[in-house]
Amino acid sequence: MEPPSPDSLRFDDRGLVPCVIQDWRSGEVLTLAYMNEEALRLSRETGELHLFSRSRNELWHKGATSGNTQAVKALRFDCDNDAVLALVEPAGPACHTGARTCFHNGDLQATPHEALPGLERTLVDRKLNPQEGSYTNRLLADPPFIGEKVEEEAEEVARAAREETDERVANEAADVLYHLTVLLHSRGLTLKDAEEVLLDRRR
Amino acid sequence: MEPPSPDSLRFDDRGLVPCVIQDWRSGEVLTLAYMNEEALRLSRETGELHLFSRSRNELWHKGATSGNTQAVKALRFDCDNDAVLALVEPAGPACHTGARTCFHNGDLQATPHEALPGLERTLVDRKLNPQEGSYTNRLLADPPFIGEKVEEEAEEVARAAREETDERVANEAADVLYHLTVLLHSRGLTLKDAEEVLLDRRR
Repeated sequence: MEPPSPDSLRFDDRGLVPCVIQDWRSGEVLTLAYMNEEALRLSRETGELHLFSRSRNELWHKGATSGNTQAVKALRFDCDNDAVLALVEPAGPACHTGARTCFHNGDLQATPHEALPGLERTLVDRKLNPQEGSYTNRLLADPPFIGEKVEEEAEEVARAAREETDERVANEAADVLYHLTVLLHSRGLTLKDAEEVLLDRRR
Repeated sequence: MEPPSPDSLRFDDRGLVPCVIQDWRSGEVLTLAYMNEEALRLSRETGELHLFSRSRNELWHKGATSGNTQAVKALRFDCDNDAVLALVEPAGPACHTGARTCFHNGDLQATPHEALPGLERTLVDRKLNPQEGSYTNRLLADPPFIGEKVEEEAEEVARAAREETDERVANEAADVLYHLTVLLHSRGLTLKDAEEVLLDRRR
């Protein structure tokens, strides 16, 4: 059996293969769409996501008209070689409704992997739209101050790890995560910058 | 126009709708599969993922034979109402090959959202298979010691935030993330426990 590869992808009788589009940074699933062979080739060659529109029956350069293009960071293929996972960096909303993701109906309560991306979106919004008297805005504007807060929270999580309940440890760890994320944003950085360091160390 | 809901899902001419299956905790996309109306109903009623196997042409209770069931945490639907996103907690590997995810071919270099889940998998493995002389194992076995390390790293990221380069800030933030994650695991907790605290605070 031929090993799975883009060249042995199994397109269906319409010449299409489903493509799951995922934000490479937040992990959010943005859209389920379809690719034909040309869309896959152009996605690889140009580095921008190309799809096949089933409703318009034509090649579709995602974002060509709206400006909300998606840079292709990785293309993966499944065990059966009949589905694509495109990890992308979106330039704007993925959905034609203007929503960030097309999956905006149903059970929308955030799940654990969405906690930190959600926090980061709030911080970006707070920076763009500062609120009078906001603690977060005060922290964001003052890297030395937020640094002190990270140290305080680190002391508290260390104490909790030594002698307190699991619930207290989880609470104090959440405080460290929150303040560390604010610290990064106060310097114009994001969690992605720290995550890329972790990835580099593993290579 | 009827608002999107599970009851107005548009099944295709085979009575199927594609379903993206995503780990609710790590955000990893596990499988692209299909549901018919009965599979969707059973997934909601039983809380375990049910699909429709196109190759066997029958209802498929995921993991019924392998034991690798998937608990349904949320079901979302897309803007066109013709795709499902199932957020699940898997009891074991998603792929019939034994791989964690079906998307294990192509560009496999980890992307930013995969950094912390990857670190956590390493820590779980280190706990199960301790290595003589491993720094990580020493930390995992000693919550007070790892607490001290978190405090040290917090001081360093605070100093970096005050007076050092972006690169230094990102590096020190990565150190805090690494040590905080080890601290949680040293207490038998995971990042999910802290992420759930963050989510609870936003509700």
